[in-house]
Amino acid sequence: MNPSSPKRHDAAEIQRRLVDFMREYIYPAEAEIAAWQQDPATRWLPCPRIETLKGLARDAGLWNLFLPDAEHGAGLSNRDYAPMAEQMGRVLWASEVFNCNAPDTGNMEVLAHFGNEVQKAQWLAPLLRGEIRSAFAMTEPEVASSDATNIALSIRADGEDYVLNGRKWWITGAGDPRCAILIVMGVTNPDADKHARHSMVLVPMGTPGVSVVRALEAFGFDDAPSGHMELAFDNVRVPKANLIGAEGSGFALAQARLGPGRIHHCMRLIGLAQRAQELMIERAKSRIAFGKPLGAQGMAQEMIALSHCEIAQARLLTLNAAAMLDAGGNKAAKHEIGMIKIVAPRMALQVIDRSIQLFGAEGLQHPFLPHAWAGARCLRLADGPDEVHIAALARGLLK
Amino acid sequence: MNPSSPKRHDAAEIQRRLVDFMREYIYPAEAEIAAWQQDPATRWLPCPRIETLKGLARDAGLWNLFLPDAEHGAGLSNRDYAPMAEQMGRVLWASEVFNCNAPDTGNMEVLAHFGNEVQKAQWLAPLLRGEIRSAFAMTEPEVASSDATNIALSIRADGEDYVLNGRKWWITGAGDPRCAILIVMGVTNPDADKHARHSMVLVPMGTPGVSVVRALEAFGFDDAPSGHMELAFDNVRVPKANLIGAEGSGFALAQARLGPGRIHHCMRLIGLAQRAQELMIERAKSRIAFGKPLGAQGMAQEMIALSHCEIAQARLLTLNAAAMLDAGGNKAAKHEIGMIKIVAPRMALQVIDRSIQLFGAEGLQHPFLPHAWAGARCLRLADGPDEVHIAALARGLLK
Amino acid sequence: MNPSSPKRHDAAEIQRRLVDFMREYIYPAEAEIAAWQQDPATRWLPCPRIETLKGLARDAGLWNLFLPDAEHGAGLSNRDYAPMAEQMGRVLWASEVFNCNAPDTGNMEVLAHFGNEVQKAQWLAPLLRGEIRSAFAMTEPEVASSDATNIALSIRADGEDYVLNGRKWWITGAGDPRCAILIVMGVTNPDADKHARHSMVLVPMGTPGVSVVRALEAFGFDDAPSGHMELAFDNVRVPKANLIGAEGSGFALAQARLGPGRIHHCMRLIGLAQRAQELMIERAKSRIAFGKPLGAQGMAQEMIALSHCEIAQARLLTLNAAAMLDAGGNKAAKHEIGMIKIVAPRMALQVIDRSIQLFGAEGLQHPFLPHAWAGARCLRLADGPDEVHIAALARGLLK
Amino acid sequence: MNPSSPKRHDAAEIQRRLVDFMREYIYPAEAEIAAWQQDPATRWLPCPRIETLKGLARDAGLWNLFLPDAEHGAGLSNRDYAPMAEQMGRVLWASEVFNCNAPDTGNMEVLAHFGNEVQKAQWLAPLLRGEIRSAFAMTEPEVASSDATNIALSIRADGEDYVLNGRKWWITGAGDPRCAILIVMGVTNPDADKHARHSMVLVPMGTPGVSVVRALEAFGFDDAPSGHMELAFDNVRVPKANLIGAEGSGFALAQARLGPGRIHHCMRLIGLAQRAQELMIERAKSRIAFGKPLGAQGMAQEMIALSHCEIAQARLLTLNAAAMLDAGGNKAAKHEIGMIKIVAPRMALQVIDRSIQLFGAEGLQHPFLPHAWAGARCLRLADGPDEVHIAALARGLLK
Repeated sequence: MNPSSPKRHDAAEIQRRLVDFMREYIYPAEAEIAAWQQDPATRWLPCPRIETLKGLARDAGLWNLFLPDAEHGAGLSNRDYAPMAEQMGRVLWASEVFNCNAPDTGNMEVLAHFGNEVQKAQWLAPLLRGEIRSAFAMTEPEVASSDATNIALSIRADGEDYVLNGRKWWITGAGDPRCAILIVMGVTNPDADKHARHSMVLVPMGTPGVSVVRALEAFGFDDAPSGHMELAFDNVRVPKANLIGAEGSGFALAQARLGPGRIHHCMRLIGLAQRAQELMIERAKSRIAFGKPLGAQGMAQEMIALSHCEIAQARLLTLNAAAMLDAGGNKAAKHEIGMIKIVAPRMALQVIDRSIQLFGAEGLQHPFLPHAWAGARCLRLADGPDEVHIAALARGLLK
Repeated sequence: MNPSSPKRHDAAEIQRRLVDFMREYIYPAEAEIAAWQQDPATRWLPCPRIETLKGLARDAGLWNLFLPDAEHGAGLSNRDYAPMAEQMGRVLWASEVFNCNAPDTGNMEVLAHFGNEVQKAQWLAPLLRGEIRSAFAMTEPEVASSDATNIALSIRADGEDYVLNGRKWWITGAGDPRCAILIVMGVTNPDADKHARHSMVLVPMGTPGVSVVRALEAFGFDDAPSGHMELAFDNVRVPKANLIGAEGSGFALAQARLGPGRIHHCMRLIGLAQRAQELMIERAKSRIAFGKPLGAQGMAQEMIALSHCEIAQARLLTLNAAAMLDAGGNKAAKHEIGMIKIVAPRMALQVIDRSIQLFGAEGLQHPFLPHAWAGARCLRLADGPDEVHIAALARGLLK
Repeated sequence: MNPSSPKRHDAAEIQRRLVDFMREYIYPAEAEIAAWQQDPATRWLPCPRIETLKGLARDAGLWNLFLPDAEHGAGLSNRDYAPMAEQMGRVLWASEVFNCNAPDTGNMEVLAHFGNEVQKAQWLAPLLRGEIRSAFAMTEPEVASSDATNIALSIRADGEDYVLNGRKWWITGAGDPRCAILIVMGVTNPDADKHARHSMVLVPMGTPGVSVVRALEAFGFDDAPSGHMELAFDNVRVPKANLIGAEGSGFALAQARLGPGRIHHCMRLIGLAQRAQELMIERAKSRIAFGKPLGAQGMAQEMIALSHCEIAQARLLTLNAAAMLDAGGNKAAKHEIGMIKIVAPRMALQVIDRSIQLFGAEGLQHPFLPHAWAGARCLRLADGPDEVHIAALARGLLK
Repeated sequence: MNPSSPKRHDAAEIQRRLVDFMREYIYPAEAEIAAWQQDPATRWLPCPRIETLKGLARDAGLWNLFLPDAEHGAGLSNRDYAPMAEQMGRVLWASEVFNCNAPDTGNMEVLAHFGNEVQKAQWLAPLLRGEIRSAFAMTEPEVASSDATNIALSIRADGEDYVLNGRKWWITGAGDPRCAILIVMGVTNPDADKHARHSMVLVPMGTPGVSVVRALEAFGFDDAPSGHMELAFDNVRVPKANLIGAEGSGFALAQARLGPGRIHHCMRLIGLAQRAQELMIERAKSRIAFGKPLGAQGMAQEMIALSHCEIAQARLLTLNAAAMLDAGGNKAAKHEIGMIKIVAPRMALQVIDRSIQLFGAEGLQHPFLPHAWAGARCLRLADGPDEVHIAALARGLLK
């Protein structure tokens, strides 16, 4: 490990470089990358421009910023990283440029903390270098996956192997041709206590019996080439050495993975909403209707001002959750993480929707707004619907 | 066609037949038609199953129900027709089966009321028979079209012809290969008073200089084959005989067209929301999470009950607006029509969104819900954004 | 009294007379009556001006309009009466002028339908003449009274008498010196099935052991002289002949009493909100801030227009519930009555709050708005909190 | 001045002592003080128990904590003081115990920064010692005072004196018999530019011509003995030496006064809401309805969890505004102060209203909740209605 973790001063410096990088390289590439991602001939392939940008980001020292572990990553705290994630969230594909995109980030964390040396060498190292991509196969179509104990994919021991049977969906990243490895959650110990039934195993993407059933869409966006895939596992056989951690530790690993992941998602949502707000302001300044700019009209002013208040509050709440996570870990920050999971997607949806409304029919065709909305809408369901987090938070407070 | 307008009793009878028809023919066809509309090879072509259903609807006397004019249509009042539109709104493509779909309905009304005999024979007759389709070209990309006086497409007189130059978008129906005729709004008298500058002219779809630029999408739905198209008009030349009504009457014609159109849209939204609500109830009954059906959980109950209250209220408001329109015409019902335009899309969005939330990840893939949401979202912008109607209503009340 | 129930035509005629009466006699008396009700020396006494107005109302045939029973009342349907209740709701004390105020109305209905001839002669007759006032003692401080089966006041049989012990609160009307009779709900059969445990008995106000503990206030308003009282019952002895209906029928009587009562409450709330809206419009026209009238400013326009939409919807929903109640009785209209109970108080609170906001600091001192707000706020709790009705409606829909 | 401002460490230590003091002395006194404040015989007199508590607070070094000026006050930054104001806000009368109550705090700041030595000796010194009370007379009944340039009270120079004529209302604190001094804003230079027309002068409470017209109430609460008074100024004559700062500086002084004042108000609102939330949680744990505690029911859980999210966000936003104010002054923190003014009262109202709802009929009689609600409602209007701050924030963002 690095002898010392970077100081606050360093984080501010990295943040400045990141903002510069966004301005210099990311925004100017948006049109080209949008074209690539919309062209049916190319959209499911990695975009060469993004690959070029990755090289520039690595050279600029803007790489693996998410990883608090100073050996593998930037050694930044969650609190330090949060505003960087916000910056990246301003452009839907930007996180990948810095090797900071979900679900690879969470997968790298799992491997860094719980993988053995062989697993680290085989999968973590190329992920950290950005050479391969990965996916995390947890959610299932048939069960309420928000209660992780419902996960039903069977992982049966058979000699030196595990044999997997079942179905997963909303597996982000599994559409990418570079996706080499899946972390699959399933049931190894069906008779154990319900929090000790599950395990996570590594399944290389090409393993016989793994098949992509279809790409899922939300409000017209499939996020190619990463995608959100439905996967079938038919008698998929992997060696027992592919188990991550101990048998029966799957539920605990899933919990450990979620804390920082939610911070990242929420910070990206802040960036998403902030950009929608800036677009709304630009629009309000320039668009004339009924004889004066929208920005001089009361209802538009209300949209802008309330959005500003809501974004600022969600940002502070997320920064606070990050600081709590740094200070006390997942458990101590449980309520704070629950709160941002409830607050940030709703806030982003509201702000983006207002922005669309201000843009009128143009808003529906906007290169950023509807896609941002669709992404935020998914996050009211991904990692558990709002209602589950609301109930959990209330129960915690009632104790 | 009917010599006399049907009595109240008849409307109830037609309504019953329509409900039966939906159950017997429409719902069973949903899967097949969805498949056709999703297949890239067929989706921009008229679906043969819909054509078959049209024949059945015509035979069942469920044809042109929207037209209060007993000579050409069913002779039903807006109030009588409203619950029929609600029924049709329960399935996104159903209105067309009964020749009751926008924008053909509004176009037929314009032709029936303001077209001359030649125009009626050439365009209204085949529209009423469902042989051709039409579009209404009003909204423009560059201007705030919510203020109709901003419409800028130029219609210049040149000898016996008009020459059109400009651009339109969100032209619903213009994607259909059967779309034969456009009603185009533009400026014929640029120096006249701003409410007397515009006229409407008939432009056959194949006229040289008319080109489809692209199909527009909203949240992933392009509503093929009808579509919402961007159209270019480059030196499009049509005879002056294609003028509808008088030169300079375009603004007045547009106003006249909107009243019943909004009732229809809103009633369809009621049907849309009602169906989302019924889906939500089915889901709440069958889905188990954390040990009990969603329907036994307080937050799901709240979603269901509040949705029911909101739908019921919007339905009554729309029926009331229809009755006012029947009794006193567009002007007398101005406030009531404004109110449903404000209320119905927001209500539908809220109800559908709750339904998606209850369905979890499945909601994002649902064959009905996201498409219904996208349609309702557009209707917070189509025919003027909420804010314009809110301001107009307030100004009316302040007088 | 009327031999036959009035026709629709008559209802419209009565409505017209009522509107005239409001304009001619009620609004002009507001200032005087407000002064009486604020003066500590007089406020707990009946106001002579109201008594005078009662005579005028009786002479004008505007008396007991609420009672569908043509023998005792006006013979109007709930649907016909609803807009009259709306009119009365525009002034907080107006219902009493027409002998149409809660809880006397509900008590008269109970006596008319379930009282025996002796009870009718003794209590119903003077109530119908407006000579005495009454109260309905159901809610208790210690239990969740929204679940009527929780009601705990003991009614023990003792020879020819019942002996009552317990405590009630929020007993509207019990503060009025003219309040002569209480209908008290309590437990007569503690071992019976929980829906057959309760009975209602008549308790004259002066019976030994009945004492007024205190007058309750909501947001500063105690609604003197009617009041909302806390009452103690200490060994209160009444003859068994004071039982209404059968022993164990209390729960059923309470249910029967609620249907029309809720319609009345909700219609009065519509009137309340409508008046707040009219005040808001007046204010918006006359108040200048930052150089133009509030009514020309977007946020004020939004308040006005949305209020108008919300009032119109709640009104239609309530009229519809009234019509359902007329057509099919309490049971058939169960959902509709539940909906208005959920919708109307929230709507009124929102509209009144907006109106206060538009009035600024003056709104807090306004002679109508804060009192109207306080009344509407109580109605989110009276007869069961929103949440109980939301859950009941959802459960009904899920069946 | 103190040689050094207290360190962060000290602030935490003071905060701990304050929390202890609240627990040991304030909460136990609530019942007694409520009784005093409700008794018509005593309520307009200073409560002796509060006076006793003041002595204890002074002895505990918990005195004048609000004043950043280390010479006169605790020398705490706004950011350090904010959580202390939150603590005090948990009990409606607690701020005064620590000599930290509005409007005395703002008046002391004005005097400390802008008063001359004579004024400081005469008025600031006894205020700092808590021997006298003061009021700030700005708002007027006839004009939209949210636009401070509308303030109309006339301050006419006449020889060595000023002569004041006009009317003020909502003058908090002027009801207290110990209120010795008013800071009055009025027009000294009617012909100057509109931001240079006003001045502030000191008017001793007993000056001839000053009269209290009435005590104003909001939702039943008049906040005796401090009160919110309507004051008349009829030919009130004070020496010119009573001018604060320069003639024409009134508008600037008012601006300077508002920044910290809003932070204080908002932090107290956070405390208010936090306590309502804690009461809600207690209630949800103990109250059984329909067979289980409210806290086990979904809609109550939602109320609790969302309240927690909203309070946490508003708290962070306010702390952030305080930090910005410390770092850059009123101007730099303008947007942040605008945001908390918009956010905090709405948040508090929502949380308190939910708490009332959970308490049912008891909520309406609760010793804390309705009073807290009324206080928060006033703060959507005091110092300018929401709409003014929304518009100002939007305009700032649009620049």
